[in-house]
Amino acid sequence: MSAARLAFLASRDNPRIKRLAALACNARARREYGQTLLDGVHLIDCALAAKVPLREVCVSESGRQRIEIAALLARLPDDLPLLCVPDALFSRLSPVDTPTGILASIALPPPVPPRADHASLVILDAIQDPGNLGTLLRTAAAVGIETVWLTPGAALAWAPKTLRAGMGAHFRLRISEQVDALASLADYGSKVVATGMGDTARPLFDIDLRGPRAWIFGAEGQGVSPALLERADEIVCIPMAEGIESLNVGAAAAVCLFEQSRQRRG
Amino acid sequence: MSAARLAFLASRDNPRIKRLAALACNARARREYGQTLLDGVHLIDCALAAKVPLREVCVSESGRQRIEIAALLARLPDDLPLLCVPDALFSRLSPVDTPTGILASIALPPPVPPRADHASLVILDAIQDPGNLGTLLRTAAAVGIETVWLTPGAALAWAPKTLRAGMGAHFRLRISEQVDALASLADYGSKVVATGMGDTARPLFDIDLRGPRAWIFGAEGQGVSPALLERADEIVCIPMAEGIESLNVGAAAAVCLFEQSRQRRG
Repeated sequence: MSAARLAFLASRDNPRIKRLAALACNARARREYGQTLLDGVHLIDCALAAKVPLREVCVSESGRQRIEIAALLARLPDDLPLLCVPDALFSRLSPVDTPTGILASIALPPPVPPRADHASLVILDAIQDPGNLGTLLRTAAAVGIETVWLTPGAALAWAPKTLRAGMGAHFRLRISEQVDALASLADYGSKVVATGMGDTARPLFDIDLRGPRAWIFGAEGQGVSPALLERADEIVCIPMAEGIESLNVGAAAAVCLFEQSRQRRG
Repeated sequence: MSAARLAFLASRDNPRIKRLAALACNARARREYGQTLLDGVHLIDCALAAKVPLREVCVSESGRQRIEIAALLARLPDDLPLLCVPDALFSRLSPVDTPTGILASIALPPPVPPRADHASLVILDAIQDPGNLGTLLRTAAAVGIETVWLTPGAALAWAPKTLRAGMGAHFRLRISEQVDALASLADYGSKVVATGMGDTARPLFDIDLRGPRAWIFGAEGQGVSPALLERADEIVCIPMAEGIESLNVGAAAAVCLFEQSRQRRG
């Protein structure tokens, strides 16, 4: 890295700083600028590996001294704008609770139209917590699923907190947002499975999951919406200890998707 | 509920309000008062079901109008102190991002000495995120595990955010904190299994898990500490799509614990 590229800025009134601060915490600003923020070495590394162009990189003064951040800076293209700001200012820019000392802006990807082929896919029905949403995306990528649909009411897939929890999964998935899942499932060629409770739900471990499936996971509290439950070919429940009603949706989805993965392995 | 019991308070300088605010965000205050906060109807219901005595209940003005909160208030003991505060003040008291309109203080439970018998148990090695920790506790309770140990460096089990994510699991578990896991495992009568990567790790689905196990799950990023990895009788990995290194620790633990649950069922 040539230090000459590094611009030191300390004023929160600087327009570049103001833009980063707006991207960190303001969904409307992200739409208007058409950009979002990646926080941390791992996430920026994943973007680079996926050939997602970075727009600008910002480090904190202490972060810049850390070995893994210095190594990342050395790998960046020469013409990439690079800011360095005091630690206190960086904390205001970082979209996460425990800032790691480096963040980068990228362009928001264009909307992805939902496509239902015969492969497995995951439908996340109004999952509102960005941490849960990111974890779910990460789990979907980990089992090799490539397609994820989010229904209206979900957290924003490309918000910094969702990206952080996704840990790079975003760059391996086709994520469609604001999807009318019922309409988009019309052409789906395999079985639709939703998690649910009640008499019609069959225990997960008793079901043949070796073929492709469209999985529907619902928001905590409400569960999968009635219209989507109706559309499901099968409703599954995860057998639990007596008196326990439900799991965190990220944990529940992991159990379901890896059970499918286990069955498909052999 | 007799409305006479309800004290309306609007000043953040009122000593009862100040105590609740301190319990919400300050671990030292929780230790000094020997109390913690439960946020939301579900969690308070779980405490009541487990016969955990509430010390004080606080509702927001709008929360009090909600049907499920009004119904909960009607079930409370007559002599329980009950506060009602304006919504804006309630937001400052609530320890969570999306306050539900009711919270209750309870006594912190006395420390639980770690006990290793022959049953399955879960060891959480320095899990720092309260949301992850709560999710892990919830998953452990869901598979019927009763004993959880937290090593030093973990988030606080009885912090309001951990309690919220645990969704009542705390009241079904024996949770020991600050545990020297290596020493406490000395008398453990069954196999110790840790999650890990590398050549020595065996795929989860290839392992016989029908007997009791002490499971060790590590902090994200670092994983299980070397001394505990060394102690493990078996190191397991979760088979994942190529290029994916890891899962969220809550998701990984759910996959492992429910795989054991599946094997034990049949």
